[in-house]
Amino acid sequence: MSDFRVFYLGVGSATPSLRHQPSCQVIDFRSRLFMVDCGEGAQIGMRRMKLKFSRLEHVFISHLHGDHFFGLPGLLSTMALHEVGGSLTVHFPAEGVDWLIDTMDRFCKYRSFDINIEPIPSEGGLIFEDNSLTVEAIPLNHRIPCTGFVFREKPRLRSLKKDMVEWLDIPIKLRHGIKEGNDYITDDGRVFKNEQLTIDPAPAKSYAYCSDTRFEPKIASYIGTTDVLYHESTYLEQDRQKADERFHSTAADAVRMAALVKAKVLVLGHYSKSYQETQGHLDEANEVAQELCPELKIICADEGLVLDI
Amino acid sequence: MSDFRVFYLGVGSATPSLRHQPSCQVIDFRSRLFMVDCGEGAQIGMRRMKLKFSRLEHVFISHLHGDHFFGLPGLLSTMALHEVGGSLTVHFPAEGVDWLIDTMDRFCKYRSFDINIEPIPSEGGLIFEDNSLTVEAIPLNHRIPCTGFVFREKPRLRSLKKDMVEWLDIPIKLRHGIKEGNDYITDDGRVFKNEQLTIDPAPAKSYAYCSDTRFEPKIASYIGTTDVLYHESTYLEQDRQKADERFHSTAADAVRMAALVKAKVLVLGHYSKSYQETQGHLDEANEVAQELCPELKIICADEGLVLDI
Repeated sequence: MSDFRVFYLGVGSATPSLRHQPSCQVIDFRSRLFMVDCGEGAQIGMRRMKLKFSRLEHVFISHLHGDHFFGLPGLLSTMALHEVGGSLTVHFPAEGVDWLIDTMDRFCKYRSFDINIEPIPSEGGLIFEDNSLTVEAIPLNHRIPCTGFVFREKPRLRSLKKDMVEWLDIPIKLRHGIKEGNDYITDDGRVFKNEQLTIDPAPAKSYAYCSDTRFEPKIASYIGTTDVLYHESTYLEQDRQKADERFHSTAADAVRMAALVKAKVLVLGHYSKSYQETQGHLDEANEVAQELCPELKIICADEGLVLDI
Repeated sequence: MSDFRVFYLGVGSATPSLRHQPSCQVIDFRSRLFMVDCGEGAQIGMRRMKLKFSRLEHVFISHLHGDHFFGLPGLLSTMALHEVGGSLTVHFPAEGVDWLIDTMDRFCKYRSFDINIEPIPSEGGLIFEDNSLTVEAIPLNHRIPCTGFVFREKPRLRSLKKDMVEWLDIPIKLRHGIKEGNDYITDDGRVFKNEQLTIDPAPAKSYAYCSDTRFEPKIASYIGTTDVLYHESTYLEQDRQKADERFHSTAADAVRMAALVKAKVLVLGHYSKSYQETQGHLDEANEVAQELCPELKIICADEGLVLDI
């Protein structure tokens, strides 16, 4: 099983429907959960996908349209009732932090877990880092301040060649340094180069989340490159005018961004409820990809999708 | 089709589950909709039961536990996006009105409908009245201020006997008075008593909603009598201690209240998620009813139930 995967809980747009839930994704990175957006019904989505509240460590809210955060008070209240311990950090748009604090103080006062509310800088930048992962905020171009997020695994340490370690009987205290790239010098002065002792680690992976936004090439420069890109595709090109007016993207726009950030996989979502099904999105995206980036794999997300990064 | 019916959108308790939605009911009274409580997912429940947002005129929120009102921001936002016209009145616990105004101002500013927010007096009393209906708030006994609601149809006018009206050629301007109980005196002085001219109207009906509360006989004195009583039954008698500690009722408590208010029908709901199914509630209620009020009809509500009052 992959240790970096994304669960899609809601891939609909502005108004929930019987077909789609509002935006919510959960990233499972080495057994810790990171939620991105939290539309109404997110807590039910977690139950449905058997994601434990107690493993949830961070929530990132892209912007303050209700379909991206109205599930948060309910989720936090339920976590409080469940007597989940530990701590949870909510990365929230700066202009709404006072509202969230007020809402928690009023309706979710008695909690068994600590809650930290971190304002997201609208200019973007690094907002989370630990030994194995970074999360960067990416300024998007929507009607109100909106940020995307890039989850980037840090390069893993090199893997020791077990037979060499045993043959040379390398002391345990030196092994970490060798994983980091050191050579090994024996007591009698013989030098073993690092490439004799280790093999390349699995490549570090990354996942970028872009919702909601108009297509703008500048966004790609913030993202850099990514293995997998989730990009909103509220509309199709046939509804280009609506997309422009409402600061949203088409399926074709999403492919254009995927090409700029050299993604291997593009995941589409945030479909307008005016489309009954997603075949149109897939067809439009594949057509554009054939020209721009024929290797790109395109997936239309649906509630319940689980994707290994 | 009845012109006074209740749609049950959510009959679960504190935390939503895959089995039950949080509290929400919609009363359809002569084609106008009155929502009682608005747990997360209420807007989806309306779609599922094909209840039009444009017909919703009043929302009543019993108390400020999240499972009774966290669906409200999403519902109002969706109504705004749908460009529903007219006006909507939200009857909201007084201590939360400033929060609701702030939330609407921030996240649901551009609305095509007028919204009136009316604080509910914690001491109860008449909170709505028009030509055909009254709604009274009933103080309940919960951990925080909580009110129930009684929807009471006003007595209908008497029905004219069509043959008498034609035979006597009663002027149109006098007919309303006769429906109200007047006699009719002909130009030559003959008196026709009202009971010769009219028949009894259909009896006026009432529906009382009690959630969340401990059992307290005083509540019955506020309700008076009602045809149909919805009463929370979070627990069974086997969990009496939990019920007492958490200010909730058992199925047996609900029957006791039904007996006091002389209800003909009792609807149970707000089940704790610790029970897998409702047979235990039905059995316990029927056992108590056999002694106290053997004529009582008992229904365990489920999502999707529609009940004619």
